[in-house]
This record gives sequence, structure tokens and C-alpha cells, in this order.
Amino acid sequence: MDKIKNRFEIGIFALGGLGEVGKNMYVIDYLEQLFIVDSGILFPDSHLLGVDYVIPDYTYLQENQNKIVGLFITHGHEDHIGGIPFLLKKVKIPKIYAAGVTVDLIENKLEEYPELLGETQIVEFKSHFVYEFNKVTVSFVRLAHSIPDSFAICFKTDLGTIVHTGDFKIDLTPVGPGAEYDKLAKLGNDGVLALLSDSTNALRPGFTESEKKIGASIKELFRQVDGRIIVATFASNMFRVQQIVEACVQTNRKIAVFGRSMEKTIEVGQQVGYIKSPKGTIVQPEDIDLYQPNEICLLCTGSQGEPLAALSRIANGSHRLIKLMPGDTIIFSSNPIPGNQEGVNKTINLLFKKGANVIVHSPIADTHTTGHASQGELKLMLNLLKPKYFIPIHGEYRMQRVHADLAIECGVLPQNTFILENGDVVAINDHSARIAGTVTSGEVYIDGEGIGDISSTIITERRKLSSDGMFSLVITIDTKKKTIPIEPQVVSRGFIYMKDSETLTKKFIDDAKAFLLQEMEKGKEVNLSLLKSSLATFLSEKIYQTTDRRPIVIPIFMDLAPQN
Amino acid sequence: MDKIKNRFEIGIFALGGLGEVGKNMYVIDYLEQLFIVDSGILFPDSHLLGVDYVIPDYTYLQENQNKIVGLFITHGHEDHIGGIPFLLKKVKIPKIYAAGVTVDLIENKLEEYPELLGETQIVEFKSHFVYEFNKVTVSFVRLAHSIPDSFAICFKTDLGTIVHTGDFKIDLTPVGPGAEYDKLAKLGNDGVLALLSDSTNALRPGFTESEKKIGASIKELFRQVDGRIIVATFASNMFRVQQIVEACVQTNRKIAVFGRSMEKTIEVGQQVGYIKSPKGTIVQPEDIDLYQPNEICLLCTGSQGEPLAALSRIANGSHRLIKLMPGDTIIFSSNPIPGNQEGVNKTINLLFKKGANVIVHSPIADTHTTGHASQGELKLMLNLLKPKYFIPIHGEYRMQRVHADLAIECGVLPQNTFILENGDVVAINDHSARIAGTVTSGEVYIDGEGIGDISSTIITERRKLSSDGMFSLVITIDTKKKTIPIEPQVVSRGFIYMKDSETLTKKFIDDAKAFLLQEMEKGKEVNLSLLKSSLATFLSEKIYQTTDRRPIVIPIFMDLAPQN
Repeated sequence: MDKIKNRFEIGIFALGGLGEVGKNMYVIDYLEQLFIVDSGILFPDSHLLGVDYVIPDYTYLQENQNKIVGLFITHGHEDHIGGIPFLLKKVKIPKIYAAGVTVDLIENKLEEYPELLGETQIVEFKSHFVYEFNKVTVSFVRLAHSIPDSFAICFKTDLGTIVHTGDFKIDLTPVGPGAEYDKLAKLGNDGVLALLSDSTNALRPGFTESEKKIGASIKELFRQVDGRIIVATFASNMFRVQQIVEACVQTNRKIAVFGRSMEKTIEVGQQVGYIKSPKGTIVQPEDIDLYQPNEICLLCTGSQGEPLAALSRIANGSHRLIKLMPGDTIIFSSNPIPGNQEGVNKTINLLFKKGANVIVHSPIADTHTTGHASQGELKLMLNLLKPKYFIPIHGEYRMQRVHADLAIECGVLPQNTFILENGDVVAINDHSARIAGTVTSGEVYIDGEGIGDISSTIITERRKLSSDGMFSLVITIDTKKKTIPIEPQVVSRGFIYMKDSETLTKKFIDDAKAFLLQEMEKGKEVNLSLLKSSLATFLSEKIYQTTDRRPIVIPIFMDLAPQN
Repeated sequence: MDKIKNRFEIGIFALGGLGEVGKNMYVIDYLEQLFIVDSGILFPDSHLLGVDYVIPDYTYLQENQNKIVGLFITHGHEDHIGGIPFLLKKVKIPKIYAAGVTVDLIENKLEEYPELLGETQIVEFKSHFVYEFNKVTVSFVRLAHSIPDSFAICFKTDLGTIVHTGDFKIDLTPVGPGAEYDKLAKLGNDGVLALLSDSTNALRPGFTESEKKIGASIKELFRQVDGRIIVATFASNMFRVQQIVEACVQTNRKIAVFGRSMEKTIEVGQQVGYIKSPKGTIVQPEDIDLYQPNEICLLCTGSQGEPLAALSRIANGSHRLIKLMPGDTIIFSSNPIPGNQEGVNKTINLLFKKGANVIVHSPIADTHTTGHASQGELKLMLNLLKPKYFIPIHGEYRMQRVHADLAIECGVLPQNTFILENGDVVAINDHSARIAGTVTSGEVYIDGEGIGDISSTIITERRKLSSDGMFSLVITIDTKKKTIPIEPQVVSRGFIYMKDSETLTKKFIDDAKAFLLQEMEKGKEVNLSLLKSSLATFLSEKIYQTTDRRPIVIPIFMDLAPQN
């Protein structure tokens, strides 16, 4: 890093979270101290076949392990904490600072890996706590988001204060504790050197709806529905869950909970007090049939059409306890995340087919709101903090770009806005800031726990396999006698149905044999690896001409000639 | 069919188009005459790996070939005409009835397969034409849609009239010829026995915006933009293209056209008169640099983020003629079709990164409207036609269901609405209607032209391959001596990177050898196929334990023992 910025500058960069929504990980580097903010995963889009998660490349942190001061967590969503187990496997993190329910979520996550916590301590901060490091003071500002206990994190240095918003919206009638606007205003008056702010909804004009407004329309829906109500929502949104509980109380319904993450939410939410329900409101899943349809509400996971979640199993009729009945109403208190639309639609069609009524979030049934600030709120944040330098984070390029334009509208100088990619380092000194260079960054694909990361070569192979399958020819050959003494065997998967294609297969075998015998005659000695690759090329072309498909062609040779 | 309905009933069913948006194909069966409406394809969703198109199962038509009277085409979109080449390969269709640009589109499609037209005649109908069959009179009603020359098709019988709307919207200020509302009203007054109506937008309240309103806002955008304008839209929407041409004329821009389907639209549109441009408006693609940025507009394909389309190549910098420059404005006059959102977002991010300005359809930039009727228009159609029986078509189950509810609101008796699946046959006689049974229906997957359809087994294999790849072990064995004389070879793709995993691979080989030697000792004779499947199971489990992945495991045996 000293090659990139000088020792007395502040370095700011991301290892994940720029140009994408996911795997958030930001680093503030000052006086040989690395302050890491968040450690998330990214859920891969459909072209990353078979990949479970994507995490950042941690090389830079591994190489600078001794400088790491701590990992500061803004809130408990997977794109901010999901990477912690993978990070701890590779990098020694002395302390993880987190607040409220975030601590529970991290502890749950690490339960499976007790060995990882050996050298790491989880420190629970409160909103008013302050941590002192060498010329850096870290403090926190409570903000509103779609999960409780979300915080902006402030790094006060002798060069000025850097504020990282985390994920936020401005909710003037929040369900949980209110945001600390006074702290934001004071930070702004004292002077903010640089602001890193959430760009997720930077393309959205106006203001995001309050969580409480959604609660009101859910309650209104509950009043109108006669039969049984089944509600699906994000398990992490305790405020939403609490409002659903309130709707049940007001309409005299008992509530039963389905899905492991939802059960956990209820448990933790009740412990910390974000979920409050009169005794007897929550009943056992096994007891739902003891109540009349209009006396019960089922709260479940599966709002994203996840195949194994409670709602999906209800929809396809495979749920252990819940059978749909005429008059059931399903309320989606959620929006499909991009990429999940197909799955959600399938679930909805299945529910409709079973005779249920389905209510999704729409202009006439306001059952969901986003947790991220729209343009009006982003401008309010900029007005309160009045930063000198501005770095839009947490978003795709177009979101970062529009967010930077908003900052310029709010008075930030155009040359003081930095639209970065992962790895780009902004260096700030007492009179200027510049993009000073880059550190190692990249994507690491996680597929299964055993091995860990896989390469892009594997993904490319999977893509080819997924599109046209594979065709393998096992050839017993004698390279000395230049003969093929046994009929080659064909093994194929995902290409053509072999039983219906005997003639075709026979032709490919004959073509291959003729080609090989001809090739072997060409020179004196047979070069088996050359022969292999030329056969693959030849056969690929033959197969493409006949079938219009391009399976991966794999020739396998067994040479009977004695090797020298 | 005579087992399903009696000879004097009318049978109505779909081979495609119900419970889905795509592969539309409806059949009216009366007095041993089959009237087919449309022959479309479905673009597969992401889980149908490597499949190019899905078409209906044509078995029923093959088995009743001699009864087919003709194929009537409502309009020229791929989900209504794309299946014609596949249909003609399998079924003899005496006549295809189509109108206006639809005829051009079908002829283009069949140009590649001249042999298919041998026994089929394309009959061009006009809106006022009437065709007489045995006690069935076929006539047409011009409607508005997002492609010119869209028609409802009416089958007048002695039992009553059946109306199939095709795809439509009610556009009171259309760009092309107006809809024939008088004909609809007269049909309604004379009495409609059954209505089959487009359900695509049945979930959408209100009325769909007029095409002309979009033209007006595109013209307004053109007036505001200073630099070069690049517009992407659906090539099939000639009305949209004509309005873009008009915007160019009004703002003194020349227009250059990129993408083969867009060139074709301009060519056909000018021939039939739907696209009119003053001489000199359209310039050659090679000449675009002869004009100032504010004197030129580039019209191109790629509004869905299709990787090879003009706009995608412009965005990734690989277009032969067009390099983006600062000040360029890209207008998407389109909406992403579900499933294409990821690709479109990628294109937009790339365009932004190159410094271009990007305008997408949004509440503040009204650059697109749908071609399908919203709830208000669906109710208007129901009010005009006043059908006795109602069958919602062209949509997923939830759309059909909501559309049926709209029909009931408009006075159709609940028991007279039929929410069908593909293959369900409604039989109508002079006093009642009922679901009488089913005919063979299903999905046929098309991957490449050479072989044609592929089975769902292949898709399942591809899905497994795409998720964890394949692991193949080639074992030379001697089942008589019960030995493995040569070290087995491993071939894997899409599973693990072999060069980094030598220890792991070695372990799998050793495990397999030990397992095989042990198994062979168990009995007197070695059953090779049993050995193969037990090795596959054993190895799958070993691999899963070690790697958390489940590749397809393929053992390949070469037996050196002499066969009896």
C-alpha cells in the first residue's frame, strides 16, 4: 500500500460491493491500521452454474494481516455478514464489532465452526460507544433499514471524518428505534471529509415508503379477509414480523410460524424485545387445526419462491402440516429479488390452482417497502453530512453514477466524487484526494464447503456441459501396430438420448475409427496427445454438422502398445 | 375425439398457450373439421438448459391429419408463428391463412425450408374476407397490437359463433389502421357462443397506454437531446419504428439501421406502407460519421440485452461501425421481458461506463407501452361481445383465473367460464358446455435443427452437469483374474480443477481400486454391470463427503478377460 499512497494519507477502497449489489467489504487504511467494514457474500446470478456464493478475493487482507484492527459490521444481512466464516478461515481478525441482533446472527453463523472463533473476539457495541485507535476514533449512528440495529460507522481522524452509511432509508415513522438525525447533523456541522453512501435505490425518484405504512395496509387486509391467512415475508425483517403479529392481535388471530429462519427470528426478536406478542398469541404449528380458519394466521418463509421453503412446500402440496383449503388467502409481504421472479410466479400459479387467493405487493395492496433510501433520502443524507468527498457504494455502476450526480446536485464538487470499482484506492490527504492505484480484488466462487473456491474454468466447462452435454469416446488402440483392436465405447450425458440414436452413434464411431487409422498411417511414430486433440476437433465438427449441437468431446485412449 | 365429445358438439382445446405465455396453438373441432389457430414457440426459461425453443406436442394433429381444414394465424409474433416450420415437418396442413405483414414473416421463415411448402398453400386474407366450410363460416376482425395486422378470428356455426381474439389491446389513438369496433358490436348483438380472449395483462388494472402517447414522449425526448441518439426497440413493432422515424424527421436527424431483423422491418414496412419516410431520411450505416452527432439517430436491435444484437455489441465495444462517444444518449423503447432483466442491466451498466447517457422506460420517460389489453379493455371486449361461454387463453394460470373473474363481473355465469390446461377439451352443444376430456398435449424441446426434439432426461442430465460437472473413471480390469492391471484414468469436467487436485484425485482412484478388488472377491463370477453401478454409488458418496459436490459419476470399464 505504501507504493500506492503515502504513509500519511487515508486510503479508502472496497474488496466487494462496487459495481454490484452484494459481497460488501470496504476498507479504511490509515497509519498502518486497516479498518474493515462488513464481510458479505453475493448470491450468484444464473450464469454462475452450480456456484453457491461469491465472496471477495481476500488476498490483500492476507498479505496485510498484521495491520488489521478489526471488522466493523453495519447490520446483519447476508451481503454484509455472510462472508465472515470464509474470511476467518483465511485471515486473522482480532475483533468483530457488531450491535444488537447482528451479534446473534453472527454467533448463529459461527456455531457450525467453533474453531474459527479461536483468535477472534466478537465485541458488542452500542450506539453511543466510541473506540479509540491510533489517531482514529470509531463511533456509530443508528439508522433505519429492513433489519433492526443498522448503523452508520464513523472514522474520525486528524485529516477529517469518514462516514460509511451502511444500508439505510430515512423512515420518519419507523417501527423500531428512530434514527439518530441529531448525530448526523452534528457530524455535518463538524465537517465530513468523505461519505460512502448506499446506492441501491439511487435510480428511484422520491422517498421510500415508511415501514409503518406497510403495517397499516397489512392490518387493513387482515380485516377484509375471512378465511385462513398465510403470510410470507423475509425472515430477517423483524419489524415486518412484528407488524404481522400486531395485525393478528387486532383481528383476533393466533399465529403459527413455519420455516427455520422464521422461527429463529421470532425467538431472537422476542429476546431482544423487537417482537412483542401477548401470551398465547403464538401457537404450535401442530395446533393450527384446532382453530377456525378466521382465527389463525400462518407466518412462513418462501417469499422468494425458494424451492425448499415452507410456502413452496405448501404450494406444491408437500408440506407436512399444512394442506391448502378453499378460502385460504396468501399474502406476499415482499418483492421478488431480481432473478427470483420465475420461481415466485411458479409458486403463485400453484397456489391459485389449489383454489387459494393470492395477494402480492401492488399499487392496490401495499404489502411491502424497500429498506433502501430513494433519491430524496439520499439527498437528505448529503445535505445533513455535507461531505467534501463522495464515494457512492453498494450498487451497480449505473446506480453509483446516478448517486454521484445527486451528490453534485447537492453541492459536492464533480472532481470530488469518485465512482470506484472494487480494488480502486482513493488516497486522501489534508488538501486533496485522488485515485492512487489498485489493490488485488476479485471474485471467489464457493461451491460446497469441502473444497471452497472454484475457478472460472470450471464455470466455463459447466456452461458448455449445460448447453449441449458431453460426448466421450473410449478407444482401445495399439499405437505400435497402428490398429484399433476393440470397438470403441461411447459414453454421453446431456447430449442425445442414446437408445434412440444408435445409428447416429454408430456413425460417429465409424467416422472416428476411419479418421484415427488414417492419421496413424501419416507418420512413423504415433503421437498420442496430438492424435487425441485432432480427434476431438474432428469429432466436434462431425457432431455439429449432424446435430447442430456442440457437446464437450472427450476422447479417452487406452494404448495396448508396450511403452518405452 | 368422438370418444370425448359427440359428433354434433363443438370441441375447443389448446395444444399450447394455456398456463403459460408462449407456443400458442388452439383448435376448434366441429363436424370432423379441425380449425387450428396459431402455431407458436415458447422461449424456454432458464432451467431448460441448452433448449432453443419449446413447441407443442403435435401428436393429436398427426393422428387427425385428414380432418385439418387449415391453420389460421392471428398475427406475426414468434409465439404465434414460430412453430410453423416444426409443424409442417410433422403434419400436413392444406392451407395457412394469414394477413398483411404476417404473410411476409411466415414466408421469410419458410425460405430456409422450401421443401416444407410443397403441400401447403399460404392464403392471404383481408379483413372483410369470409371463408365457408361445412356449416362453419370463418371471418376476421382487425384489432390493435404491437405488430401490424393483428386479427380476431370468428367461427360462425349453427350452434353459435366462437370468437378468438388473438393478442390485442384497445388503442383509441392507434398508429396504424383502427380496430373494427363495429364488427365486435355486431358480433355481440348477433350473439357470441364462446369467447377465447388474451389474458397476458389480466393482472394489470386500468387501461393500457396508447401507442401514440409513447410516440409523443419519444419525440419530446428527441427534442431535448443534443448529441447522438441510439434507440433500441423490438424489430417487430413497426408502429414504434414509424414513430421513431417521425421523431427523426421532426428533429432533422437522419436515421441509420443496425441489426438484421430491424433492416427487415424497415424493408417490409416501407413496402406495405406502415413505415413512411421522406427520401433521404434513412442513410447507410457506413455513412453515420458524415453527420454531426445531433443530425443522426441509430436505430438498432438489442433492447432485450441479447448478447449478439447490435446494441450489446455497441455496449461492449465490439461493433464494427459504431464506437460510443461522450454525449451519446441511448433510449430503450422497450421493457425487459421477464428473464431478460439481468442481460439488460449488464448492457446498461456497460453503456454508462462508456460515458453514455441511458434512458429507460419509467414513469418520467414514457418510452414503451405493452401490446396487451389491461383489465379495463378486457372488460370492454366482454361487454361488446357478451359471450355465453368464456375461456381465458394466452396466459399463466393466475392470469387466466383473474380474467375469468373479470368475465364473471361482466355478466358471464361462473359455471360458464372454463379455466383450461393445454389438452383439456370443452365440448359445447346447443344447450350446455362441459369439460369433456383431454387430448394428448405436452412440451417438445428443440435444441439445434439437426435432430429436433430432446427428452426431459437430457435436460435433467444437463442440470446435474451444470451444477457439479462430471467425474469419469476409466478402469482397465480383468474380471477373470480379478485384477486391475493398469492404473485407472480420471477424466473430469466442471467438477474440480484437476491440476490443483492431484492428491484428491489420487485418493478417489485408490478408494475405487480398493472397493473394486474387495467387491470382486465377494462372489465367484464378476457381474460387470452390477460392479459398475455399485462403484458409481460408492464413489458418488466418497466424493460428496470430501467435496460437498455431486458430479455425475461415470465409471467406464475395459475388461481384459476373454469373453465367453
